[in-house]
Amino acid sequence: MADLSRFAINQITTRDWTLEQAVDGYARAGVAGIAVWMEYLDAAGVTQGARMIRDAGLFVPCLCTGAWVNISDKAGFNAALDENRRRLDAAAEIGAPCLVMVPGGLATGEKNLAAARSRVIGAFEELLPHARATGVKLGLEPLHPMYAADRSCLNSFAHCLDLVRSLGSADTGIVADTYHCWWDASFMSGLREAGPENILTFHLCDWLVPTRDVYHDRGMIGDGVIDFAAYKALLDEIGYDGPFEIELFSKFDWWLRDGHETVAVAVERCAPFVGARQKVAS
Amino acid sequence: MADLSRFAINQITTRDWTLEQAVDGYARAGVAGIAVWMEYLDAAGVTQGARMIRDAGLFVPCLCTGAWVNISDKAGFNAALDENRRRLDAAAEIGAPCLVMVPGGLATGEKNLAAARSRVIGAFEELLPHARATGVKLGLEPLHPMYAADRSCLNSFAHCLDLVRSLGSADTGIVADTYHCWWDASFMSGLREAGPENILTFHLCDWLVPTRDVYHDRGMIGDGVIDFAAYKALLDEIGYDGPFEIELFSKFDWWLRDGHETVAVAVERCAPFVGARQKVAS
Repeated sequence: MADLSRFAINQITTRDWTLEQAVDGYARAGVAGIAVWMEYLDAAGVTQGARMIRDAGLFVPCLCTGAWVNISDKAGFNAALDENRRRLDAAAEIGAPCLVMVPGGLATGEKNLAAARSRVIGAFEELLPHARATGVKLGLEPLHPMYAADRSCLNSFAHCLDLVRSLGSADTGIVADTYHCWWDASFMSGLREAGPENILTFHLCDWLVPTRDVYHDRGMIGDGVIDFAAYKALLDEIGYDGPFEIELFSKFDWWLRDGHETVAVAVERCAPFVGARQKVAS
Repeated sequence: MADLSRFAINQITTRDWTLEQAVDGYARAGVAGIAVWMEYLDAAGVTQGARMIRDAGLFVPCLCTGAWVNISDKAGFNAALDENRRRLDAAAEIGAPCLVMVPGGLATGEKNLAAARSRVIGAFEELLPHARATGVKLGLEPLHPMYAADRSCLNSFAHCLDLVRSLGSADTGIVADTYHCWWDASFMSGLREAGPENILTFHLCDWLVPTRDVYHDRGMIGDGVIDFAAYKALLDEIGYDGPFEIELFSKFDWWLRDGHETVAVAVERCAPFVGARQKVAS
């Protein structure tokens, strides 16, 4: 039987399920963890959601996502910081070791990506004390360059690793996602350089050819062009023992199917790439 | 009156025009150059096309594109090399100083991007003697990472600049495009590092928010989020005196309009960013 003890499903994968349905559906399928989205957690109520997850015995690799900070007026920016503090509290309450920071891209009307990046770093710096107080790390996720304008201006693994180093590994780490980074010739070497201590969770998602939509046409593992076996081998080799998490945005396919079917296929496709660490022969 | 002496239109921008129509339409609008696509040139006949362009007095910054070499069987790969040699000949005949190499991504069924990249480098090495013989450089264009699987596995400016250095500046150079590289935090520094001697032509194209299609929703200058003034200032500063070229793939907008309208708007929008080099005050 497949070892799913490190395996979580990111609940956006079953978009139409409530938190309660997702917790129940994943647990029944033998999946060990659930990556939670703030919107669903708010809908359930944070305390009640935390109890559901605990009662089902699921682990939580992360809470998705931080609130966007691509706001150029000071009051709006500070409100976004407060919302991020609330989300750090919520992450702590559900036992998530990190809050995935997807900080937004350019502000409205802005054309200066360097300024946007500076603003994001400033926001992270302001959030560090609260991250430390809650024991929840800021999870820096390099997002695909095609999202630079409107989702996140953090678009390379190397950039995020630099930030983790400058902000401090005690309170930050990397959230790596095959979908966002597979194209990057330095992704593999970046994972190696980061080391297991800086990789908070590892997202699995395939790249489809053709990709029919910029946002919501991400592929089920095995349906695209990504070599997941190569990533599993590398992560085993560097000593990564953390979670694996499937995360799909799929408006043409998986979001249209029954959640139980999506979960069953996700388990079947991911099982070969999420098991216990294989020791490398030396 | 605007100085359009460095300005060319890439003919894919007026997709529905033949080469003859494009040459005529651009020349009438006062545009100095035309970037030619092989399909249109073949349709016109290479010799006849070359004559049309010469008679209209247009310069040709490049021929688009090289034939894809993402073919894993040896016979197919060699046939693609031969087709690239034919295109180098054609580029020479129309007076284009470079052939833009968009070499394809993964081969059919392939999941190894590193292998694809090695194959592409091998192809370039095999083409160097013919490039030298024809006096046409191989123009290495970093394509947006979202095209890594199925258009080009060359996806960063830094990677292309490394290749130019290893293959030799005598026979290769960079084709830079704002659309493909704007997200890259090291694009500006890369241009500076490359220097004007390694930049063969500079493509202008805006990034739309939202981007509705992965392939064919590129934006008219000014309609998106790219800061063209910043690029012009940088290129002036480093001493770039080469061509500027607008290149749009726009199935929802500009491809649907009359070519003369597209040309007129392109001229108006690009004029502020394509003029003579401004000396930097020191």
